[in-house]
Amino acid sequence: MITVYGMRASGNCYKIQLLLAHLGQPCRWVETDSTTGQTRTPEFLAKNSNGKVPLLELEDGRTLPESDAILCYLAEGSRYFPDDRWLRAQTLQWLFFEQYSHEPYIAVARFVAKWLPADHPRQADLPRLRERGYQALDVMEKHLAVQNFFVAGTYGIADIALYAYTHDAAVGGFDFARYPAVTAWLRRVEAQPGFIAQTY
Amino acid sequence: MITVYGMRASGNCYKIQLLLAHLGQPCRWVETDSTTGQTRTPEFLAKNSNGKVPLLELEDGRTLPESDAILCYLAEGSRYFPDDRWLRAQTLQWLFFEQYSHEPYIAVARFVAKWLPADHPRQADLPRLRERGYQALDVMEKHLAVQNFFVAGTYGIADIALYAYTHDAAVGGFDFARYPAVTAWLRRVEAQPGFIAQTY
Repeated sequence: MITVYGMRASGNCYKIQLLLAHLGQPCRWVETDSTTGQTRTPEFLAKNSNGKVPLLELEDGRTLPESDAILCYLAEGSRYFPDDRWLRAQTLQWLFFEQYSHEPYIAVARFVAKWLPADHPRQADLPRLRERGYQALDVMEKHLAVQNFFVAGTYGIADIALYAYTHDAAVGGFDFARYPAVTAWLRRVEAQPGFIAQTY
Repeated sequence: MITVYGMRASGNCYKIQLLLAHLGQPCRWVETDSTTGQTRTPEFLAKNSNGKVPLLELEDGRTLPESDAILCYLAEGSRYFPDDRWLRAQTLQWLFFEQYSHEPYIAVARFVAKWLPADHPRQADLPRLRERGYQALDVMEKHLAVQNFFVAGTYGIADIALYAYTHDAAVGGFDFARYPAVTAWLRRVEAQPGFIAQTY
């Protein structure tokens, strides 16, 4: 059985739980709290020198970091990651969009607003985080106004990756009244067979 | 023939030039300067609503953004992107590492140090950019101390992606005396058949 080192409060880790639920594939989950140094121990750094979760460990001990690389690996051969060269490229472009233009703003705004005290200096980052986060939501809204899902109108790992931090972006102060197409897409994701909500 | 919208001063765009040089594949290059608004025109936003270069355009008009997704697409079937499921996953994890843990610090430090005036307020970001950039270089050094290239000891798109902003990271203030393995790897990349240097 595969092992996943992850933290349930992390959207990046929830992505893996959600895909495995769709696939009906069990895993051994090792809760690993990055906020208390559990990803910076010598034991963990030996598995992932970048000191981050999620981390996938195969039965033979091989390890794979990076949430979206783990999604691609686990979804290989399934309906959630198409074989077609162009559809794969489209999937990857949304995964890179998620990690570069979406997560650093939407996930970080959520973290600052939800977990840091009201007088923490990083609260000052929120206006810029929200400005860039809104840019990402604008891109999603434009796409979803004419497509049910991100790639070829079919639910897959691009949707899973983008759902992970979009579904509770309101916690970070994002106003979803501006995003009817994104909101409808969130509900379509939640209606997929095998869907599980994030618990934390 | 394919078209690439890109800016020669951008490492993300140079990645595509470098791969195409290795593949011996010609392209039509449309120089598109993001610093003067050329990626925010209505015409460009119709091709990429995220307003970024590089952007690949196929002969039939289909478009693909995100530098590392473009690398995967163009390298498909070549020696630069292995077919094996595990080696692909390893390649992808380095590409996501590059976009999340490397480029936002090393490329941005280079931009601030090289292109912005000495009294620009963003100069104040440099210490934090360098701290995080050094963390990325530490991860690379550890890996390259025991491997010639990033995936399976063989040159490929993970190396191309990481070379793009590492080769002139010194411009951003990074001291390479600390990184003998990274420095030796830079020279190995430059010795690959078909290698071209970034020109700008």
